[in-house]
Order: sequence, then C-alpha cells, then structure tokens
Amino acid sequence: MKKIAVILSGSGVFDGTEIHEAVLALHAIEQEGASWHCFAPNIAQHHVINHLTGEEMDEKRNVLIEAARIARGNIENLENLKAADYDGLLLPGGFGAAKNLSDFAFTGAGCEINPEVKRACQEFAKEEKPAGFLCIAPVMIPAIYGPGAKGTIGYDADTAHAFNKMGGEHINCPVDDYVLDQKRRILTTPAYMQASSISEAASGINKLVKELVKLA
Amino acid sequence: MKKIAVILSGSGVFDGTEIHEAVLALHAIEQEGASWHCFAPNIAQHHVINHLTGEEMDEKRNVLIEAARIARGNIENLENLKAADYDGLLLPGGFGAAKNLSDFAFTGAGCEINPEVKRACQEFAKEEKPAGFLCIAPVMIPAIYGPGAKGTIGYDADTAHAFNKMGGEHINCPVDDYVLDQKRRILTTPAYMQASSISEAASGINKLVKELVKLA
Repeated sequence: MKKIAVILSGSGVFDGTEIHEAVLALHAIEQEGASWHCFAPNIAQHHVINHLTGEEMDEKRNVLIEAARIARGNIENLENLKAADYDGLLLPGGFGAAKNLSDFAFTGAGCEINPEVKRACQEFAKEEKPAGFLCIAPVMIPAIYGPGAKGTIGYDADTAHAFNKMGGEHINCPVDDYVLDQKRRILTTPAYMQASSISEAASGINKLVKELVKLA
Repeated sequence: MKKIAVILSGSGVFDGTEIHEAVLALHAIEQEGASWHCFAPNIAQHHVINHLTGEEMDEKRNVLIEAARIARGNIENLENLKAADYDGLLLPGGFGAAKNLSDFAFTGAGCEINPEVKRACQEFAKEEKPAGFLCIAPVMIPAIYGPGAKGTIGYDADTAHAFNKMGGEHINCPVDDYVLDQKRRILTTPAYMQASSISEAASGINKLVKELVKLA
C-alpha cells in the first residue's frame, strides 16, 4: 500500500489548515487505495482567529496540537517525517499554510518557509517523489523547488504575480482541475482559492489525489 | 432546493464535533442536491482536550465559535434555528454531542440535553421532519422523541443498554448501513462508533444522508 505523508498547519481556514480540504484529501487518499500519515510542526500558531467574527482572539495555540483535531490524534511531529519512508506528499491549504508553515500572508513574495517544512518538502523533491499542494499552499513551491517550478492558485492575480516574482511559473486553472509540473512531479489545484462549495473543492482535490497516488 | 439544518457541538472528536463526520455529512448533503445550514449553541465547551495527548487543557472555548471552524464561519446561533424554515435535520457525532449538547458522557442513562438543543430537535419531531443522528449523537433520541424511538450506535453494549434504559429501542447496525425509525422519521448510523477509517464512516453517512434528503 502506498503511503502519503500529509502536512497540516492547525485546524481552521483562517489560522490553520482548511478543514474541508484536509478531510476531502485524506478520504481521497483512502479511496485511491493508499494510506495517509499526518504531520505538523510543533510551533505556536501565528495567531488565533475567531471563525465566527473573523477577529483575532487573545489566545495562544500550538499548530501540532490543533492539527491533531483533524487527524483524531493520529499525527506526528513534523521533525519525524523522513521522505524515505513515504511515497508521496500532500499539503492542504487554509491560511495556516501562509501564516504558520510560511509567512506569505504577511510578506507576500518576500516570504520565508518554516525551516522544518522546507527540509521535509525538499527531501521529497530530492527523492523525486510526487507532492500535491492545495489552495494557497502552492505559494511555498518556488522556495522549495527553485526557479521555473510550475503551479496554480487558480485565478487570483495578486497571488499569481507573487508566485511568478518568487521564480515560479503560474498557470491559471479552474477549480475542478489541477496543474502538473511533470519534471518536478508537483501537483496543484485551487480548491478554496476558487471553490464556493465543498463539492467544488472536492472536484479538483479528488482528481489531484488520484494522480498523486498514481505517480507515487 | 431542500434545506438541511446541521447542529454542531465544537470542532474535534474528543471535546466537540467529530470533524470527518461533519465534513462528510455536509459534502453528502450537497451531493444529494440539498443545501446545508450550520448551527451551534452559544455555550462554553464542557472542557478542552489536547487531541495529541488526550489530556485536558487549562483553557476555555465556546462551542459556537469553535464549530465555526468546521463551517468556515457560515454558522448561526442555535437559538435562530426554527424547524419551519428547514426540510430536515442532521447531528454529527463526536464527544461534543455527549459533553456539550448533552451530558451523556458523564451521566449515561441519566443524561440531560441542553434545553436549546432539545427545543430545536423537538420542533423537527413535532413537524414530522426527518432527522439524522450520527455516531454517539443518537443517545439524545429517547429524550427528544420519548419511549419506543428506534436508533443505533452500532454494537457498543454499554451505550446500547443505556439507550434502552432511557426508553429507546436499540438496534445493532454495521458501519456501512443505517437504521430508520419510519414512524418518527429518525435515521441513525454508527459512523466512528464503529468506523476504523474515513471511508468506513463515509459508507454509512452517505447512505443515511441520501435517505434523509429523500424523506425531507
């Protein structure tokens, strides 16, 4: 059975992993006959957002502990992720990818990636194992793979511009499809960068995961 | 388009709504051509569990605010739920159903249901609109519908015994099926009371939601 590592960034679209994308992706991995294995960095969340009002809360939460909610406790510290043990990698979106795994939400094209996230992702790249990035997570691709890496975040012009400025090659893509960088084995789909329903998000995620498991 | 109201109880299996069950159910509602509308009571969670270790945390969280994570902010205070405005009702499981919506986790067959939850559910019962209960949520059925109401929590003997002691009629059921109380229009499926994977949970939830929307 092929093993897919999944990197989470908290639990909740505005300060962590987008929950629908994560559950759809884990389910799709199972449906393709592979197994999922969740990881998250053991770091503080950038902040905590009240998902009812959109306002910041005066609280501190930990990315790994909150991500464990999505994984039902079945999750490990990202430090333990070795690409040699897995066949493929998947990163769901949500602001956690741009606030916790990287600082793209605040610095745009000048963003830096959490060193442990970068280390893990680059291991998969080095071993030429396929990796899928959903929603806003693709903004980390240029820093991981270097100049020329192809990916999509859908149609958002500002984010696409930043992707290109960082050295990537952005390709517009509808929500029900995905972009494959064949040379680097990177798969990307817009998910909630474009989706207006769970079904729309699922349409692209299911296709991406099918291809990811095939390539793995 | 048929409208299904969904009552959440937080966000995370050990102190709130079981996340996989909720997302699978919302997705299934869309797939059946209906729309989902999330609600949660504006009350404090019974407690906060660290989902990595299983230990209680020294924190306070609000059920409605945390449930908003699953609903991407698209959620209302349960006080605003009127059965007249919807065609059917659905309650996912997770310990939130037994710790926040009711106190079944602590008092078993002597459990009481949050008054607002009881009021909303009994409105649907009175209007003879169908209601689905997943996982551990069915333990609230006897108190809502009165003696003789049929339901399942799978095969857990202690929980089944408590269900019967409260006046319900428990029916054993595998994870990929559901139980229908035709007279009262109640649907139940074991989900993570039995499931050992997302796909197993989905197998029963998808069937239940298909029938729920049909009956709605």
